[in-house]
Amino acid sequence: MKAPTGNPDRGPAPFTERAFLSGLRRAAPSAPKNPSLILGPGDDAALWRPRAGFEAALSCDLLAEGVHFDLRWTDAWSLGAKAAAVNLSDLAAMGAQPSAFLVSVALPRRAGLGEPWLKAFHAGLRAYMGAFGASPAGGDLSASRSGVFIDVTVLGEVERGRALRRSAARVGDAVFVSGPLGRSAAGLRVLESRPLARRLGARLAEALAQSHRLPVPQVLAGRWLLQERLARACVDLSDGLASEAWHIARESGVALEIDEAAVPLGPGVADAAAALGKAPHDFAYFGGEDYQLLFTVPERRQAQVLARMEHYAGCRPARIGTVRAGRGVRVRAGGRLRSLEDGGHDHFR
Amino acid sequence: MKAPTGNPDRGPAPFTERAFLSGLRRAAPSAPKNPSLILGPGDDAALWRPRAGFEAALSCDLLAEGVHFDLRWTDAWSLGAKAAAVNLSDLAAMGAQPSAFLVSVALPRRAGLGEPWLKAFHAGLRAYMGAFGASPAGGDLSASRSGVFIDVTVLGEVERGRALRRSAARVGDAVFVSGPLGRSAAGLRVLESRPLARRLGARLAEALAQSHRLPVPQVLAGRWLLQERLARACVDLSDGLASEAWHIARESGVALEIDEAAVPLGPGVADAAAALGKAPHDFAYFGGEDYQLLFTVPERRQAQVLARMEHYAGCRPARIGTVRAGRGVRVRAGGRLRSLEDGGHDHFR
Repeated sequence: MKAPTGNPDRGPAPFTERAFLSGLRRAAPSAPKNPSLILGPGDDAALWRPRAGFEAALSCDLLAEGVHFDLRWTDAWSLGAKAAAVNLSDLAAMGAQPSAFLVSVALPRRAGLGEPWLKAFHAGLRAYMGAFGASPAGGDLSASRSGVFIDVTVLGEVERGRALRRSAARVGDAVFVSGPLGRSAAGLRVLESRPLARRLGARLAEALAQSHRLPVPQVLAGRWLLQERLARACVDLSDGLASEAWHIARESGVALEIDEAAVPLGPGVADAAAALGKAPHDFAYFGGEDYQLLFTVPERRQAQVLARMEHYAGCRPARIGTVRAGRGVRVRAGGRLRSLEDGGHDHFR
Repeated sequence: MKAPTGNPDRGPAPFTERAFLSGLRRAAPSAPKNPSLILGPGDDAALWRPRAGFEAALSCDLLAEGVHFDLRWTDAWSLGAKAAAVNLSDLAAMGAQPSAFLVSVALPRRAGLGEPWLKAFHAGLRAYMGAFGASPAGGDLSASRSGVFIDVTVLGEVERGRALRRSAARVGDAVFVSGPLGRSAAGLRVLESRPLARRLGARLAEALAQSHRLPVPQVLAGRWLLQERLARACVDLSDGLASEAWHIARESGVALEIDEAAVPLGPGVADAAAALGKAPHDFAYFGGEDYQLLFTVPERRQAQVLARMEHYAGCRPARIGTVRAGRGVRVRAGGRLRSLEDGGHDHFR
């Protein structure tokens, strides 16, 4: 439904959908040609087909103002980049190669949300999508009577029948994360609390905030794990480690046992935790939005992950536990084994 | 980004995303198996591939409360159905067969928007999508600090290289619409104005309102036109006839000449126009949301459309004009030829 893009109370909107789509096409004119995208935005639908031997991986993520982002501390470029990153991360979790995306945006009439804002949003979205190989296939622009809403759908290509599933973990597998955790949650706390930012110092505070604003989707890691046939189950850490580990445990019908001392925390997370009087690992378990991968690997192949993944996928994997018979998620810390609750952000707050 | 679905100010939301997705899967358990959808919702991404010889048609449409719908006169089931219909209509315009969809919903905490509302929304969405062959492939659920937002992405399958494009009209083609126009715009007026509804009488008012609430996407018509190799250019009438005719004229580099007397108006449109003191054809030209197809056909094949389309595609096509050399859209009425403005809803209001 293309019309009306204007708020009926206040006359036509400053952009038309046509301008929105051509802005999207223009935002990265130097991107290489995408052979799977036969027809880009502009007609009633785009046309796309996977390369021979591949199938499509499809995912969508909605970002709502005041729930997922706050425009007081998120600029338009970073918001576009983040909208791309959270979607690309879902493809990474399947081991898929990003190929195309569609984006819908609802924008209220409000100072600061004019054409320059939308241009910067497009540029951030295209920069991240383009960096990982995804081209624009379509979009929709609407007025909003209230907040900003952004919904992105991504398409990736994955070798037929070989996508990394949550349900494929087996008893005895080694459990890995693709990199350090907790920085995004610490960064969110810094953005929400000036006193915390002051206590940590401007440079660390900004570095943590940046981890929250601009997560890096682990597309290379997912592709490498699939192509080397190393990962059994895989999921991305959009929520905290706790709830994502529960996903694998539940869908695979196994238990995950995590060794707390082996869970890598990002630089500065311990400082933020100390300043807030919180347990540092809770940032990893319940904080969310780290967008690293959580995956299981046959025990006999773990050496390969440790020896080569950094070299080929540019990330620093850590073995954090083992798949056991049973169900649920347990953490071993200080000689004791305790159950880890299946909770995300809400639990942390 | 799956968390948080709760409004942080008011505790956790009544639904989780998991419940949202399983509700979506359950909403039409009797739907036939879809061979192109290899993995439905529940993992980080769905897996899909077109049948051999086909490619994917992709489109998304965003509906925002207070802009595209008003919950005072739109129940949840109808809103789900309409969200499906507007997206299916984009596939119809390409001649594609619907196959899968993803849906993102942002819901505020508000009386009446609880689990029963969401169930009814799902049921309406699934009923329409299912009726035209599309299965759920994914979705996202978010809290909203303000209004209801719905974004749907659809995937269809279309024979490789044969999708119906806006840019394919040729000079001399006959211009057709797949059915009568103007009822949706008249229905919207009825919903907005009780005095108008009273003047038209309850039965006609309700029939017009229903045309606005539950448009029927012309999927069969699009498929038939493609398979019979009849249509050159095609577009769906999501906006009014004026702006959609301009799309074809612009993208094909031609002019469209429309014979006003041949433009079919839906039953009751003339009555609504008379009651409002408006020109009846303005409902067709600028009203929008009729979701019929506008298409061009080689002159020598128009008899085939007129003789068979109703039988095979269940619609009542009308020839409304001719493609001419030049540019723009012209209307012939009362012996005079005038230019038709490239305007949609805003113009009509």
